Amino acid sequence: MTNKMIERVTTSFESQSMMKTIGARINKVEKGMVTIEAPLLTSTLQQQGYAHAGLTFSIGDSAAGYSALTIMPENQEVMTVEIKINLLAPADGELLRAEGKVVKQGKRLVVVTSEIHAIKDGKKKLIAIMQGTMIPVPLKA
Amino acid sequence: MTNKMIERVTTSFESQSMMKTIGARINKVEKGMVTIEAPLLTSTLQQQGYAHAGLTFSIGDSAAGYSALTIMPENQEVMTVEIKINLLAPADGELLRAEGKVVKQGKRLVVVTSEIHAIKDGKKKLIAIMQGTMIPVPLKA
Amino acid sequence: MTNKMIERVTTSFESQSMMKTIGARINKVEKGMVTIEAPLLTSTLQQQGYAHAGLTFSIGDSAAGYSALTIMPENQEVMTVEIKINLLAPADGELLRAEGKVVKQGKRLVVVTSEIHAIKDGKKKLIAIMQGTMIPVPLKA
Amino acid sequence: MTNKMIERVTTSFESQSMMKTIGARINKVEKGMVTIEAPLLTSTLQQQGYAHAGLTFSIGDSAAGYSALTIMPENQEVMTVEIKINLLAPADGELLRAEGKVVKQGKRLVVVTSEIHAIKDGKKKLIAIMQGTMIPVPLKA
Repeated sequence: MTNKMIERVTTSFESQSMMKTIGARINKVEKGMVTIEAPLLTSTLQQQGYAHAGLTFSIGDSAAGYSALTIMPENQEVMTVEIKINLLAPADGELLRAEGKVVKQGKRLVVVTSEIHAIKDGKKKLIAIMQGTMIPVPLKA
Repeated sequence: MTNKMIERVTTSFESQSMMKTIGARINKVEKGMVTIEAPLLTSTLQQQGYAHAGLTFSIGDSAAGYSALTIMPENQEVMTVEIKINLLAPADGELLRAEGKVVKQGKRLVVVTSEIHAIKDGKKKLIAIMQGTMIPVPLKA
Repeated sequence: MTNKMIERVTTSFESQSMMKTIGARINKVEKGMVTIEAPLLTSTLQQQGYAHAGLTFSIGDSAAGYSALTIMPENQEVMTVEIKINLLAPADGELLRAEGKVVKQGKRLVVVTSEIHAIKDGKKKLIAIMQGTMIPVPLKA
Repeated sequence: MTNKMIERVTTSFESQSMMKTIGARINKVEKGMVTIEAPLLTSTLQQQGYAHAGLTFSIGDSAAGYSALTIMPENQEVMTVEIKINLLAPADGELLRAEGKVVKQGKRLVVVTSEIHAIKDGKKKLIAIMQGTMIPVPLKA
């Protein structure tokens, strides 16, 4: 992974105000794999006090999208075409961690997956899996 | 739709801090159908200045879930089992509106869909469709 | 719908040996909408005697794909990028009917849905819904 | 894996006429994992001469479902609630092989995935991934 690629992902991530609002941060950037974390804030919960599915989705989708960005040419970024989430357990704990990965780099589309874990008292539990499609778009000047 | 049902949906919705964080509000509650709106805030955008997919997902998932809640017995609420989103166009405009609907009320699961429109200069554009599964859970005392 | 378009869909359909194997036939072709039917054969069942999910999927996917084909330029055909099926009820009866529709014609992708009904003793019951993405590919000479 | 479990999976599989029609056979049965293979027959192709998506789906769905069956009590079988397939490459070769796996055994639902490879001239290529939900149902006497 070149510094340039890490910089690209970081710059794009920091320009997403949604990521700041939910307290998310990039944890790891490798070729074809990006990890994003977010704490369980009192401002991102659902009615039972667990993390809202919208939080789990947001970091899972972003991790998947940025994993695709790491294999794009410099003049391109990516957008989500579609993505599906299966929720396996309540998002309970201090922190959520999403690991996005490229499964297939096609000519026109990139197929990705994400696994999201909740960390509670130092223990990691798989709470959601995602499977989706990203599409390259020309980078706006 | 009884007042009791509208109250149930509203009470649950207001206890989701995530909905407050993204500025969402309930727009309409009918038996098997709920509409939720959210403005495009400067705090919920992605890197190109459109609404973040996490915002679109959050209101689409909530509208679908609450549509399922309107057909549940009083001692139950619902959780998302899985849901898929296809993004059709950039979420551009002043407001997003998600309409969630019950497609099939099964004995153990409820199948739902959501359509999300962006409203820009008074014009409505379909930007995303969702298809998913909700499961009843006992209401916590 | 021009005769040319109906012919295109029919010719492609007839070159799919899988459709013949499961006894499927085209029922209706309109711009952006195609209906495909298949009888419940003794050769396409699952272990409980209902139609196999593979049958439901096959006609639902084909109806969706051919609905996309009806809006393609003449030198192109389509392939499925991804598609999701929610099964609502056992596929019980004499006949399955899938109605595929174009939801969004994008520049590079076409978003589609399918509804599949089972017909039993003349009564129609919704047994599955599908949501997916088709991609144009150059027609092989 | 007990012999009893292998027998249960085999008995159910053999009562699915659809599996015989497409030439599928069970390749491997382990606790939480089942592999199913099908040759590319001249009767299961699409219009370009590749395996029909309905074939890929059928063995992927069955492998996923039977992986869930391996962890069920003896008086239960499983049905597909929903499943999504992303097609990564044309299904070209002599044989398709689907490996289904249990990701999460919940109290009421089982989350599963499948990976489908095509084997051509002895080389294995990933052509599709699936992510879905299975539900236990009482075994019919």
